[in-house]
Amino acid sequence: MDNTTLVGMLAAVCTTAAFVPQVLQILKSGNVDGISVAMYSTFTFGVTMWLIYGIILQDLPMFLANLVTFLLSSSVLILTLRKRWQNRRAPKGVIPHV
Amino acid sequence: MDNTTLVGMLAAVCTTAAFVPQVLQILKSGNVDGISVAMYSTFTFGVTMWLIYGIILQDLPMFLANLVTFLLSSSVLILTLRKRWQNRRAPKGVIPHV
Repeated sequence: MDNTTLVGMLAAVCTTAAFVPQVLQILKSGNVDGISVAMYSTFTFGVTMWLIYGIILQDLPMFLANLVTFLLSSSVLILTLRKRWQNRRAPKGVIPHV
Repeated sequence: MDNTTLVGMLAAVCTTAAFVPQVLQILKSGNVDGISVAMYSTFTFGVTMWLIYGIILQDLPMFLANLVTFLLSSSVLILTLRKRWQNRRAPKGVIPHV
């Protein structure tokens, strides 16, 4: 593998794998306070467009890389929305019915 | 512009512009609690690799798109680190020296 391909591969792996610690942090801490729903909505939509672009061009590596990114960014989005919804139902200081 | 190019452009614009609401949310609320530093460190490094890849391939659109993404993701990283550092210096319930 030449150096150019190596840089491209490293770039693709990092910008995809970057979302793993974010997903893990939410699952571990349950804290989504600072996370922007607008960011993850726009990003997940954009990655869906990259997926479609990969399908049109029949580019398997592009499709697979964006499929992983889609799964991760949509996980952040869904986890954030679920947590916000739970917090809205049980605001701070109010003990929810059990 | 054909439909394929349109899908690709839309994908690039969305995955880049997505970081704008995250930067604005931090600037407005000052809350970075749920944001993963590991995510933004890895992502910013990955985007730097895409920038280098764009330079090697002499691909101006790739370079410019990743330059914007780099500025935005590094802003999230710097703002998050600064806020965490401020919070560490003045923990909750402790009045800092003025």
